[in-house]
Amino acid sequence: MRRLNYLFLIAFTFTSYSQNSNSDSVFINKIYNEALSNGESYEWLDYLSNQIGGRLSGSVNYDRSVKWGKEQLELIDIDSVWLQPVMVPKWVRGAPEYAHIETRPGNNISVPIAALGGSISTPSIGIFANVLEVKSFNELRELGKDSVSGRIVFYNRPMDETLINTFEAYGGSVDQRTRGTAEAAKLGAVGVIVRSMTTILDDYPHTGSMYYDGLTLNQRIPAAAISTNGAELLSSMLSLNPKTKFFFRQNSKNFPDVLTHTVIGEIKGSQKPEEIIVVGGHLDTWDLGDGSHDDGAGIVQSMEVLRIFKSLNYKPKRTIRVVLFANEENGLRGGNKYARESKLKNEKHFFALESDAGGFTPRGFSFDTSEKEFKLIKKFEELFEDYGMNNFFLGGSGADIGPLKDGLVILAGLRPDPQRYFDVHHAASDTFDKINKRELELGAAAMASLIYLMDNYKL
Amino acid sequence: MRRLNYLFLIAFTFTSYSQNSNSDSVFINKIYNEALSNGESYEWLDYLSNQIGGRLSGSVNYDRSVKWGKEQLELIDIDSVWLQPVMVPKWVRGAPEYAHIETRPGNNISVPIAALGGSISTPSIGIFANVLEVKSFNELRELGKDSVSGRIVFYNRPMDETLINTFEAYGGSVDQRTRGTAEAAKLGAVGVIVRSMTTILDDYPHTGSMYYDGLTLNQRIPAAAISTNGAELLSSMLSLNPKTKFFFRQNSKNFPDVLTHTVIGEIKGSQKPEEIIVVGGHLDTWDLGDGSHDDGAGIVQSMEVLRIFKSLNYKPKRTIRVVLFANEENGLRGGNKYARESKLKNEKHFFALESDAGGFTPRGFSFDTSEKEFKLIKKFEELFEDYGMNNFFLGGSGADIGPLKDGLVILAGLRPDPQRYFDVHHAASDTFDKINKRELELGAAAMASLIYLMDNYKL
Repeated sequence: MRRLNYLFLIAFTFTSYSQNSNSDSVFINKIYNEALSNGESYEWLDYLSNQIGGRLSGSVNYDRSVKWGKEQLELIDIDSVWLQPVMVPKWVRGAPEYAHIETRPGNNISVPIAALGGSISTPSIGIFANVLEVKSFNELRELGKDSVSGRIVFYNRPMDETLINTFEAYGGSVDQRTRGTAEAAKLGAVGVIVRSMTTILDDYPHTGSMYYDGLTLNQRIPAAAISTNGAELLSSMLSLNPKTKFFFRQNSKNFPDVLTHTVIGEIKGSQKPEEIIVVGGHLDTWDLGDGSHDDGAGIVQSMEVLRIFKSLNYKPKRTIRVVLFANEENGLRGGNKYARESKLKNEKHFFALESDAGGFTPRGFSFDTSEKEFKLIKKFEELFEDYGMNNFFLGGSGADIGPLKDGLVILAGLRPDPQRYFDVHHAASDTFDKINKRELELGAAAMASLIYLMDNYKL
Repeated sequence: MRRLNYLFLIAFTFTSYSQNSNSDSVFINKIYNEALSNGESYEWLDYLSNQIGGRLSGSVNYDRSVKWGKEQLELIDIDSVWLQPVMVPKWVRGAPEYAHIETRPGNNISVPIAALGGSISTPSIGIFANVLEVKSFNELRELGKDSVSGRIVFYNRPMDETLINTFEAYGGSVDQRTRGTAEAAKLGAVGVIVRSMTTILDDYPHTGSMYYDGLTLNQRIPAAAISTNGAELLSSMLSLNPKTKFFFRQNSKNFPDVLTHTVIGEIKGSQKPEEIIVVGGHLDTWDLGDGSHDDGAGIVQSMEVLRIFKSLNYKPKRTIRVVLFANEENGLRGGNKYARESKLKNEKHFFALESDAGGFTPRGFSFDTSEKEFKLIKKFEELFEDYGMNNFFLGGSGADIGPLKDGLVILAGLRPDPQRYFDVHHAASDTFDKINKRELELGAAAMASLIYLMDNYKL
């Protein structure tokens, strides 16, 4: 009899698990079918990219995207939509940049550059100086003030193309762009040129943020990204003639902070409305392309999660909130403000998921949580096997949701295939034609599926 | 003492395995670094696609690609390179096709079509007839001769967009293209229009092979693919007015078979030269695009496998043979001839790997072998984990190597991410600009790694 009971218990447990898991897998299948058959993410992104376009913080275009985001969220008929005010930096590129390499007096080859975000202008007549090519800050410091002073520092350490994870390669080189100008300025450089952060050789300069650290206004020097082809050419010219001179002119300017908004919408939870699940991306982009991959994709995928739930008539247990964050690219003011407001209101965030790594075929999710928690969540992995994206791993989530981290909230990031991302990242080539409809939709479906599972997790 | 021995044995076995596995993983890392840093596949494909272009069997362009393939293989200095003669079908598209929907007398909307490969021409004045839209052969047969006779049959069953594996969706719809014309002709249809085999809505007709089965010359009717946008439009028009007429004109023609070649190169094995490992793809393409994904990618990846071995100074134990097969698209004559010749010469093939599913991020390998053998090979999977493509599964290899199947040879196919393949498959949009360098190189590296492992397997 004991034995019978014992067997019965096993059988029951198994059936019960299997039923739950089965109903989860049925619902996830519905999510995928909805995303692939009736998805709106692609058409949304078409509008956002082609009718609005690039939308740097503080621009008129950014405000147009806020209006659009609010209107679209209202159209999918969720419980509430509102704007969260946030003060953001305003930086303007100004007139197109120009640069050339002087191979010998009177013989110039023009090369494509783009001012780095936050950089000051050159004098209106430009900067014309000798060039010091370096691969690292150590090399720069060892060369010292005598070598650097009066020169344009040219950072030319490429992203490591042998790394399979291109984000790791980016992480290994981007210090040149973010901190290189301050380092060079301290040693008396007159300007900075940085090799674009991409592994491909092409003619697009890739912009991105840079910081002057503690430098006073008069210590600051202008900085620009040069296309990888341009960097290769400049490096060759320097190796032929170390006295090769470089000219560049840019007209960028920092203005006082301006008021803009993060867009928020939510479906109220039916069982634990006080526990909030966030899904989001950033609505701002750099100004060169239309930001389709960075991060238009994350925006429309996040919106699509709520649209899918509404369309499948799914009533979430917890409150599901979509957040279209302001100002990720050059300030993270939207993410910081959201976390600060949330803390002031004593809101409890249970889970937050960000998509900000491009709209490519989703390969998995990264989690920022305890190992113990991660082990439990990793059990969901098998539910994604049929969709080719069962790669859950610990490490990282997203910049905008990062400030929510409090030791309790579980953070996660969508991890799409990373091979193509840096081809277009922060460049004029980040445009809608680089988006594949199915890849974008599969990302949205994966996100909706994870949000659904987390909504039912630990109830 | 027994115990000690026993422990010693375990330790030894473990060390031995670990050393092997470790040296394998070190060598695989070298392969990936070589492919990503010094790879030639991308430049080769640039030439093949942009300087030679589309190369249908029997065309001058195909013969140019044979010459190019042979020359390039000779340049990488492998042991021998030769051409295998093969007779192939010659089909020519002729003057550009034209089609329109007559919405009402005198009001025509032109739509993009492309003759299916192997189809006969229309009369020079074209075909103008009423249209019968069907989704399946069953539907067609139920409608019967009275409904079909004198009409253009319009097959309009879309590929199932909810299937994650797009090849499965293709398999579920392609019978309309391959067998639909014969089915319709038997019931008296005067022509056939087939919805293009793609899930996207665009203006490219996607061609592909069709067969007349046993139909005599005078029973044959012409067949063309219509773009998906065209199919949607035609279907709408028919639902508004079932008497809507369709006009199409094409000038395609079948010629007698012509002599051409499969290109073969090899590195002789150092330990078991009599055991052959094949890596290959097909050199022919459809005529509309330049065939960069189908199958230029597979060609240059296969060539790259041997180049990598030479460059790393790897001396294979078995004979490694690269085969650039002729005539996969409309006849499979190259694959059949290769297998037949091989049998005649009593050659022993140990392993064959084909890449013919596009040059996208590799996700895994499919195997066509016994379950027992597969279980052993699946142990290699973990070696690919760091490269994001550890998905080994049973089922399918490649069309060209299929004829080698004899119950002994192990067959395999590279399985890239399938989301974008059918966007361009057999259409004018299958061009070099759709190729991503890193994705292509990662495929070549994965193939070289598997070939290396199989070369050392069961020695």
